[in-house]
Amino acid sequence: MSEAIKAATLEYTTRLGDDSVVLGHRISEWISYGPFLEEDIAYGNVSLDYIGRARMFYTYAAELANDGRDEDDFAYMRNDREYRNLLLMEMPKGDFAYSQVRQLFADVYYTYLLPELLKSKDETLSAIAAKAIKETKYHLRRSRDWVLRLGDGTEESHKRTQKAVDALWGYTHELFDMDETEQLLADAGIGVDVSRLRDAWLAKVTEILTEATLTLPTEEWAVRGGRIGYHTENLGHMLTEMQIVHRSFPGCKW
Amino acid sequence: MSEAIKAATLEYTTRLGDDSVVLGHRISEWISYGPFLEEDIAYGNVSLDYIGRARMFYTYAAELANDGRDEDDFAYMRNDREYRNLLLMEMPKGDFAYSQVRQLFADVYYTYLLPELLKSKDETLSAIAAKAIKETKYHLRRSRDWVLRLGDGTEESHKRTQKAVDALWGYTHELFDMDETEQLLADAGIGVDVSRLRDAWLAKVTEILTEATLTLPTEEWAVRGGRIGYHTENLGHMLTEMQIVHRSFPGCKW
Repeated sequence: MSEAIKAATLEYTTRLGDDSVVLGHRISEWISYGPFLEEDIAYGNVSLDYIGRARMFYTYAAELANDGRDEDDFAYMRNDREYRNLLLMEMPKGDFAYSQVRQLFADVYYTYLLPELLKSKDETLSAIAAKAIKETKYHLRRSRDWVLRLGDGTEESHKRTQKAVDALWGYTHELFDMDETEQLLADAGIGVDVSRLRDAWLAKVTEILTEATLTLPTEEWAVRGGRIGYHTENLGHMLTEMQIVHRSFPGCKW
Repeated sequence: MSEAIKAATLEYTTRLGDDSVVLGHRISEWISYGPFLEEDIAYGNVSLDYIGRARMFYTYAAELANDGRDEDDFAYMRNDREYRNLLLMEMPKGDFAYSQVRQLFADVYYTYLLPELLKSKDETLSAIAAKAIKETKYHLRRSRDWVLRLGDGTEESHKRTQKAVDALWGYTHELFDMDETEQLLADAGIGVDVSRLRDAWLAKVTEILTEATLTLPTEEWAVRGGRIGYHTENLGHMLTEMQIVHRSFPGCKW
């Protein structure tokens, strides 16, 4: 592996890990607040899937970095400007409709991203994708069901779900952005060219939103910056809470 | 100074420092959210008074402890179970009426506590009290003015202020509790016997609440535990936010 490819793979793996841990933490904020017990446990499991995925990405990133850091250092010892996740993942949990719409956007994204990552010439990334694909099928079934149920539900649930779609839409464009790092890896057959996933994602999301009697936003606005460490105010507060125990007991083992 | 007195003075000084830093931090949460600019700045200054007071107490505590810790270690490196502040101080900022009622309760408390601490045979505690007395006169003028203005204001402001009085009342009893440590120091002429301040505090608070057309709560309930490290859920979250920068850059100097 050339040094340029190796450095790009480290950055790419960290990005994928950041997406997973941030979304996983956001989902975990619902634990004990679910609408009913079965749902509470199910959503907790989805959170664990994402955090497990983050562990795999970070463990590989630590291996590539080879500078003494481990998975915990990647998760707990970087501040918000060092995080490289998509902004969509860091948005607050909001109400249940808001979290489920975000989840739908993410689940459809992974539905198309992971089969591409499975083809990666990088065996570790391919293996992580293989495991994550199975989880994602289940995740999408859940978030799709919820968006249908809430969008095509009561007047209040419809209103809230439409509001969530409108509020989150501008954060979805970033999911399909490519930069030099990702282009280098896509050309090398290691990373995914996400710009090519946009049409399939939009078609699937449109289909589900339409079935849920929801309207696709027409307003054109987009917020970007996660991949270069320019985050919304939400991430810093989230990391503060996520990292305080580790930072309070640095190097603690059990 | 005997070892027993010294240990008690360390504990006592830490308690007074904890009261100050926790209340100071709560007030600081209002910065940039004040009802108008002048008030915003004034309240920010009150916060600084309390944090300055905490610095003096902690510096003295570090001197007494003589174990290599400094004021920052006392503020930033102890968790909620190690904090010894009164629960009243850690209650969330709530709405403006809530914060001002808490402030009134605290300001009246210090109005009677500090002149007693001024008489302490411990010269450092006496000197801190001397400085704090001047600040407290100004603090009380402000919180009294606000409680009068809000209590005897609109229907809405009256309702909210009464609600704050009712909600905070049960946390005021702890202010006048004595334990072995404090009794030892009171007997030695170093600490204040706060149980003797209750009548004066109640008379002054009753006078101000009555003038503000507010009603003294009659419900009998009390929550205690701050002095032994049993806190409400609010403190842990507050300390997380307060300590994250220091814990992220341990030992950092500038």
